Amino acid sequence: MKSGLKFLVAARQCEIRELEQLMVTGALVQATGRLVHALQKERGLTNVFLGSRGLRFGEARLQQRTECDRLEAAVRAAFDRLDTEGGRIGNGARLFSRIAYVLHGLDALPGLRARADAQALSPAEAIRAYIQLIGGLLAVVFEAADSATDPGISRLLVAMFNFLQGKEFAGQERAVGVGLFAAGRAAGDAQQQWLHLIDAQERCFQVFVDFATADLRGQWQASQAGAAIADIERLRRIGCTAPDGGPLDAGLSQPWFDACTARIDAMQAVEAQLAADLLRMCEGRLAQARSDLRSHQHLLQSPSDGRVDEGAFFDVVPRAPDPPGAAAPRVTPAGGYGPQLERSVLELVQEQSQRLQAMGHELATVRASLDERKLVERAKGLLMAHRQLTEEEAHKMLRQTAMQQSRRLVDVAEAVLAMADLLPERPR
Amino acid sequence: MKSGLKFLVAARQCEIRELEQLMVTGALVQATGRLVHALQKERGLTNVFLGSRGLRFGEARLQQRTECDRLEAAVRAAFDRLDTEGGRIGNGARLFSRIAYVLHGLDALPGLRARADAQALSPAEAIRAYIQLIGGLLAVVFEAADSATDPGISRLLVAMFNFLQGKEFAGQERAVGVGLFAAGRAAGDAQQQWLHLIDAQERCFQVFVDFATADLRGQWQASQAGAAIADIERLRRIGCTAPDGGPLDAGLSQPWFDACTARIDAMQAVEAQLAADLLRMCEGRLAQARSDLRSHQHLLQSPSDGRVDEGAFFDVVPRAPDPPGAAAPRVTPAGGYGPQLERSVLELVQEQSQRLQAMGHELATVRASLDERKLVERAKGLLMAHRQLTEEEAHKMLRQTAMQQSRRLVDVAEAVLAMADLLPERPR
Repeated sequence: MKSGLKFLVAARQCEIRELEQLMVTGALVQATGRLVHALQKERGLTNVFLGSRGLRFGEARLQQRTECDRLEAAVRAAFDRLDTEGGRIGNGARLFSRIAYVLHGLDALPGLRARADAQALSPAEAIRAYIQLIGGLLAVVFEAADSATDPGISRLLVAMFNFLQGKEFAGQERAVGVGLFAAGRAAGDAQQQWLHLIDAQERCFQVFVDFATADLRGQWQASQAGAAIADIERLRRIGCTAPDGGPLDAGLSQPWFDACTARIDAMQAVEAQLAADLLRMCEGRLAQARSDLRSHQHLLQSPSDGRVDEGAFFDVVPRAPDPPGAAAPRVTPAGGYGPQLERSVLELVQEQSQRLQAMGHELATVRASLDERKLVERAKGLLMAHRQLTEEEAHKMLRQTAMQQSRRLVDVAEAVLAMADLLPERPR
Repeated sequence: MKSGLKFLVAARQCEIRELEQLMVTGALVQATGRLVHALQKERGLTNVFLGSRGLRFGEARLQQRTECDRLEAAVRAAFDRLDTEGGRIGNGARLFSRIAYVLHGLDALPGLRARADAQALSPAEAIRAYIQLIGGLLAVVFEAADSATDPGISRLLVAMFNFLQGKEFAGQERAVGVGLFAAGRAAGDAQQQWLHLIDAQERCFQVFVDFATADLRGQWQASQAGAAIADIERLRRIGCTAPDGGPLDAGLSQPWFDACTARIDAMQAVEAQLAADLLRMCEGRLAQARSDLRSHQHLLQSPSDGRVDEGAFFDVVPRAPDPPGAAAPRVTPAGGYGPQLERSVLELVQEQSQRLQAMGHELATVRASLDERKLVERAKGLLMAHRQLTEEEAHKMLRQTAMQQSRRLVDVAEAVLAMADLLPERPR
C-alpha cells in the first residue's frame, strides 16, 4: 500500500515529467517557427516566380527549398522525439492529430513544388497551398501552447504562438499588397481582406506584448519603430483607400514587397530571442523541480512507513495552546515520525497543494487568451460539417460575415456556435 | 521517422489511455463516495456519543467504525491502482497531492478515535476533525472531476462532486441543528452558519441537477418530495428564525436528527446510481474508442509509409472541378495510397481534429462550473499564507465577510484575489 509520502513524491515527479515534456515541446516549437519562416520566404519567392512566368527568382527559389528541406528534417526529428507511447503529454490526442495533419502536408510538398516548377498552378493557388501548410504548422504550436502546465512557460508559449501567427498574417498581407499593386487596379474584396489582415496581426501582436517579458517587449517595440514601418503605413494607406476599380501605381509593388520583407525579417530576431527565452525557462523550472525533489528525499528515507500522528494532521499549523485540561493524550503509532518531522511533512503536503492550485488558476488565466481561436476553429468545424464547406470556405464565410456586420471574427463565431443546436444533427 | 498515420493512431491511443485512467478514477470516486458516507455516519454517532458523555451510541459507533475500516481499505486499494509512475493522469500532480493529504488524514484517524473513546475531546472538536478529513476526500473527487478529458464523463464527475459536496453540507447542517436544538437556546452565530449551509448545499444540488442525466434528476426530485423534507423545512424555520438568545425546544433535537438522517440516507441511493452511470459511461466510451481504433487499423497495415499525394492534401474535400486548362499534373510518390484511400486518411485526420476541438470546447464549458470552488480555495490559500491562518480560520473569515456584506462566497474570494498584489510577497 502506498503511503501519503509516496503520493507526495509522485506528485512532484509528475511535475518533473511534465516539465521534461515541455522541454521537448519547446524545442519543437522553436524548430517549427524556423520552418514557418523559411516556408513564408519560399511562398513569397514562388509567388513572384509564377507571377513572372518563371522569369524571376527561379534560382533563389531552389536555394530556399534546400533551406526548407533542412529545417523540415529538424521539425520531423523534433516530432519523433515526442513521447507518443507514454501518454505523458497534456493534450496528446489533440497535438498528435495536428502533427498527423501537418506531416501529410509536408509529404505533399514535393508534389506542390513540382507543379510550381511546371508552372501548372496560378500564384493564388500556390499561396493558398502554402497558407494551408503553414496554418497546419501553427496549429501544432497552438496545441503545444495549450498543453503546458507551468504558467510561466505557458505565457511564453502563448506569446510565441501569437507572435508566429501575427507574423504569418504579416506575410499574407505582403502577398495581398503585392497582388493588388501589381494588378495596377484597386479591388474592394482584396482591400477588405487586407484590412482584415492588418487588424488580425495587430491583435496577435497585442497578445504577444501582453505575455512577453519586458526585454522582448522592448526588442519588439524597437524593431517596429524604423523607417520601414513608416513606408509600410504609407503604402497601406495608398493601397487600402484607393476607390474600388480605381488605378494603383504598379511600380509600388516592389517597394511594398521590400518594406514588408525587411519588417518580417526583423521579426525573426524577436522570434529567435523568444524561443531562446522559452528553452531557458524550461531548463530553469526543471532544475528547480529536481532540486526540490532531492531536498525532500530525506523524508522518503525515513524509517517510518509514512503514518502520521493524529495531532499533527488535525492541527497542522501551530496554534495557540489549548486551555489546560483540554489537552488530549497523543497516540503515536509505532514507527511514526517525530512530531517535528510529521509537521514538516504535512506542511509540505499543504504547501504543495496550494502551490499547484495557484498554478492552476494562473494557467487558466493565461490559457483564456487561446479561447478566442478555439471558438473560431470550432465554428469553422461546424460550418464545414453542416454545410459541406472546405476549411477555407468556412473561414471566408465567417470573415465576410464579420466584415459585413462590422463585428469581430470571434463574435461571429460565438453566434454560429450559439445556433449550433438549431442545425441538423451531424452525421457520424 | 514516424509518419502522419502513426501520429493519427498515437492520438487515438492517447484517448484510449486517458479513458482507461478515467475508468480507474471512476472506481476511485465511487469508493471515495462510499467512505465519505460512512464517515458522515461515524461523525454523527461520535457527536452524540461525546455529547451524551458516552451514554449513547457506544455500540453503534464501534460497528460503524468497522464499516468505515472496510471502505477505507477499498479507497486505499483504489488509490494504489492509480498509475503514479506513467504520468498518464491529466492533472496527476494535483490529484496525487490531494491523495497524499488524505492518506495522512486516514493514518491519523485511529488516533482521533482513541481520543473520542477516552472522551478527551469535545463534540465540536470531533466534528471539526471529521469535517477536515471528509473535506480532504472531497478534494480528491474534485481533482478527479477536473482531470477528465471526455466531456460526457466530466459532466458526470462534476455532478458527482457537487452531489457529494451538497450531501456533506447537509450532514454539517444536521450537526449544527442538533447542537442548537440540544442547547435549548438560539445563537446568532450558529444560525448564520446554518443558513450558510442551506444556501451552499442548494447551490451544489443545483449544479448536480444541471449536469445529471434526466433519469438521475427524476430520482433526485422524487427523493426530495417526501414528508421528511416538509419536517426538515419546518424545523429549519423554527431553528433559524428564533431570536438570538431566545429559547428553543430541546425535544426537537431528536426529530431533527432523524429527519436529516432519513434525507441523507435517501441521497445515497441517488449517489449509487450516479456512480453506476459513471462507470457505465466510462466503459461505453472505452469500448467505442477501441472499436474506432480497430476499424482504422487496416490503414496502418497499408504497404505505404504513409506519404500522401499533394492533390489529396491541398484539396481534401471534393470541390467543383477546376476550369479547363488549370488542371495540374498529379505527382504521386512511389508506394503512395490509392487516391481514394489518401482522401479517407486525410478526412480521418480532419474529422479527428475537429472532434477533439469540439470536445475541448465542451469540456471547458463543463469545467467552468468548477472554477468557483477553485477561486475560493485559492483565496483561502492566500489568506493562510499571508495572515498565518489555518485553513479553517481562513474559510471562516471568508464566510463571515460574505455574510456581513451579503455577498456570495465566490465574490468575496474574487475580491481577496484581486487584492493579492497589495499583500506582501509570500515567503518561500
